[in-house]
Amino acid sequence: MSGGSRLDPWVDSYASRAHAMRASEIRALFAVASRPEVVSLAGGMPFVQALPLDMLTETAQRVLVERGAQALQYGSGQGDVTLREQILEVTGEVGVTAHPDDIIVTTGSQMALDLVTRVFCDPGDVVLVEAPSYVGALGVFQAYECEVVHVAMDDEGLIPAALAEAIATTRAAGKRVKMIYTIPSFHNPAGVTQGPARRAEILAIAQSAGIVILEDDPYGLLGFEGEPPRALRADDGEAVIYLGSFSKTIASGLRVGWAVAPHGVREKLVLAAEAAVLCPSNYAQLTVSEYLATQPWREQIKTFREVYRERRDALLESLQALMPEGTRWTIPAGGFYSWLTLPEGLDATAMLPRAVANLVAYVPGTGFYSNGEGRQNLRLSYCYPEPERIREGVRRLAQVIEGELELTQTFGTSHMLGDVSGTSVPSPDLQ
Amino acid sequence: MSGGSRLDPWVDSYASRAHAMRASEIRALFAVASRPEVVSLAGGMPFVQALPLDMLTETAQRVLVERGAQALQYGSGQGDVTLREQILEVTGEVGVTAHPDDIIVTTGSQMALDLVTRVFCDPGDVVLVEAPSYVGALGVFQAYECEVVHVAMDDEGLIPAALAEAIATTRAAGKRVKMIYTIPSFHNPAGVTQGPARRAEILAIAQSAGIVILEDDPYGLLGFEGEPPRALRADDGEAVIYLGSFSKTIASGLRVGWAVAPHGVREKLVLAAEAAVLCPSNYAQLTVSEYLATQPWREQIKTFREVYRERRDALLESLQALMPEGTRWTIPAGGFYSWLTLPEGLDATAMLPRAVANLVAYVPGTGFYSNGEGRQNLRLSYCYPEPERIREGVRRLAQVIEGELELTQTFGTSHMLGDVSGTSVPSPDLQ
Repeated sequence: MSGGSRLDPWVDSYASRAHAMRASEIRALFAVASRPEVVSLAGGMPFVQALPLDMLTETAQRVLVERGAQALQYGSGQGDVTLREQILEVTGEVGVTAHPDDIIVTTGSQMALDLVTRVFCDPGDVVLVEAPSYVGALGVFQAYECEVVHVAMDDEGLIPAALAEAIATTRAAGKRVKMIYTIPSFHNPAGVTQGPARRAEILAIAQSAGIVILEDDPYGLLGFEGEPPRALRADDGEAVIYLGSFSKTIASGLRVGWAVAPHGVREKLVLAAEAAVLCPSNYAQLTVSEYLATQPWREQIKTFREVYRERRDALLESLQALMPEGTRWTIPAGGFYSWLTLPEGLDATAMLPRAVANLVAYVPGTGFYSNGEGRQNLRLSYCYPEPERIREGVRRLAQVIEGELELTQTFGTSHMLGDVSGTSVPSPDLQ
Repeated sequence: MSGGSRLDPWVDSYASRAHAMRASEIRALFAVASRPEVVSLAGGMPFVQALPLDMLTETAQRVLVERGAQALQYGSGQGDVTLREQILEVTGEVGVTAHPDDIIVTTGSQMALDLVTRVFCDPGDVVLVEAPSYVGALGVFQAYECEVVHVAMDDEGLIPAALAEAIATTRAAGKRVKMIYTIPSFHNPAGVTQGPARRAEILAIAQSAGIVILEDDPYGLLGFEGEPPRALRADDGEAVIYLGSFSKTIASGLRVGWAVAPHGVREKLVLAAEAAVLCPSNYAQLTVSEYLATQPWREQIKTFREVYRERRDALLESLQALMPEGTRWTIPAGGFYSWLTLPEGLDATAMLPRAVANLVAYVPGTGFYSNGEGRQNLRLSYCYPEPERIREGVRRLAQVIEGELELTQTFGTSHMLGDVSGTSVPSPDLQ
């Protein structure tokens, strides 16, 4: 009746878009990361253990005791109105002001990504994204059969001239550019941040081209020095849709994110959300709302920053001390990730089985491209393991890279030794 | 910057599907129902007040204290494996056996509806649904630009001969039927239930036509007499995708539902779910899991049944006592709804403003059709108000219908007095 069979009698009944759905790296990451002997520098799991659990338990308890009937009931498709007001306090930290009506609460900001794409993109429409870009966003664009065009970055993120050129080239080819998707602050996976001047340039290009910017900002409050970077949305409420999340500032298991959108777009997003899930969870929303109202959330974000800064330092110090010559990496000023470039001739995808055999995991760069690029790159996450484990992980990774370099010097590129498709995920026997 | 403007500069940038997104009745329902002086027989809100709140508070507390780091973290895209095993205990009540791998946990079963449609339906594909059908399902099919074909029902639900004919007619017109969407038990909105023989006939028709059945079963355990009806899925694990939900048996605010699907379909659903929300909330999932493991959930469902049976009886008795001649309604043996047919010449959509003015609300029948039918019908929900309020609501409704009848006898049909588009929703000034 079920379970074993691999034959799929329905394969001819699927929608066209279903054929574009392929195994994402995200699923494999969880499995790789879960073996305790492996140091996982792969997954982007926030270190939720830094939250005071008793305080959160109290918060949840108070929600059920005082507002149980509401917490357990259906709510508005747009999200709880008090929470939407509180979200504006949080977005105020990156300069985003709006009316609570302009906000829609979603099941994580991933859902906001999905809804925005659903509202804007027909199959074949072009979305411009950074090179590399967030794997979960690429998955959404793929699911809606968009064409993804990668735009070059440097140490200050998306390059304005490259963006302008990509718009011109794509339009010259007769294609329609629907969105510019960008993570301006503490980029996933690249670990870089757009400076203020660059943000202004990018915004001006989008405005002049009449293309909406989808600004994804899950890490904006997790910078290691100075004030949080000012969001693109802070300077234009019509050209920018801003996505935020409590996954990294409170807890990812709550699945509470949001979008701030221009009025007409927000109306469409609410309709799309009602079709998708009816309404977000009141249970999770009221827990977040009560937490924001009664707990020192800004202090807690400072604690998270300290935790992640210490881990970033552990990563950078040990990379500096241990990586073979020819290896390069970005210096993140916030967030969870550094983007590493292997010495010439090495292939991060082909190397992964040997890394896992040496008990360290990362995400190969190809997962962050939709065009097979990124073979020489990998993403290192420092968010979850303790600093000592990070150092041990880097030590193991350095061994693997050195081993690859020796093999390459003897036999040619690692690519020839063990080719793995650019879009594949770690196979089950590696996990 | 935001808030007031009604001009939408992005209207030309939307996807084709966005033009099919229109205001659903669901949103308006919440607003109508929220005015305390209105007796709302409109919304389908479960009576969560029947849950012992202290017991649920304890459950949530135990989850955070004992498994806080897991509850607050990202989880698997398919859902928590322990919860999936427990879900099989619940589906066992309606005869559904499966492997935990065949289950995907979703943000309410609405999300499962969305994902199944995403995997199966291209624009223009036909979905066969009951006449009338669940408004939230129609919203999903519309969002994916499906063509919805309604199939006649009687007091035993979907009529097999009409189903076979609809398949033949649609195919003869050169269209592709992708799914049969049905709510076999305690139908929303029709309040009827398919008998065992009829289920076998419907299943045989789908099998012979090679069309997947999407079986939506949120109310299956909420029957008022005897054993829960055996699900269609219990007799075929390949032809049927089964959707279940904890919204009515525990609490809708948790947003935890599921699909049981054939292996290949389930794999696609997980990929679609990862793109849509990454993963369902661990916080909500572990709360449900702990509740199922430690609380007398079968007893609690019995309590819900008693609550809803008493309310159903209050509704039926007062309908019987108060409704003018020529009014008919279905006799639900479970679930939340009765479907009422007005006397000849009356129009439920046109009548709604006068009903709300008389402080009673319902959902006009047109919301449950995609083709403008249902003007003579309305849905009455007895799930949420106390029995005394239900009786008062029916009394108010009877007054309105009688008033309409008098007007009709004097001036002609109510349709002529106040036409409202078949797909419109109550306007804000009525709420």
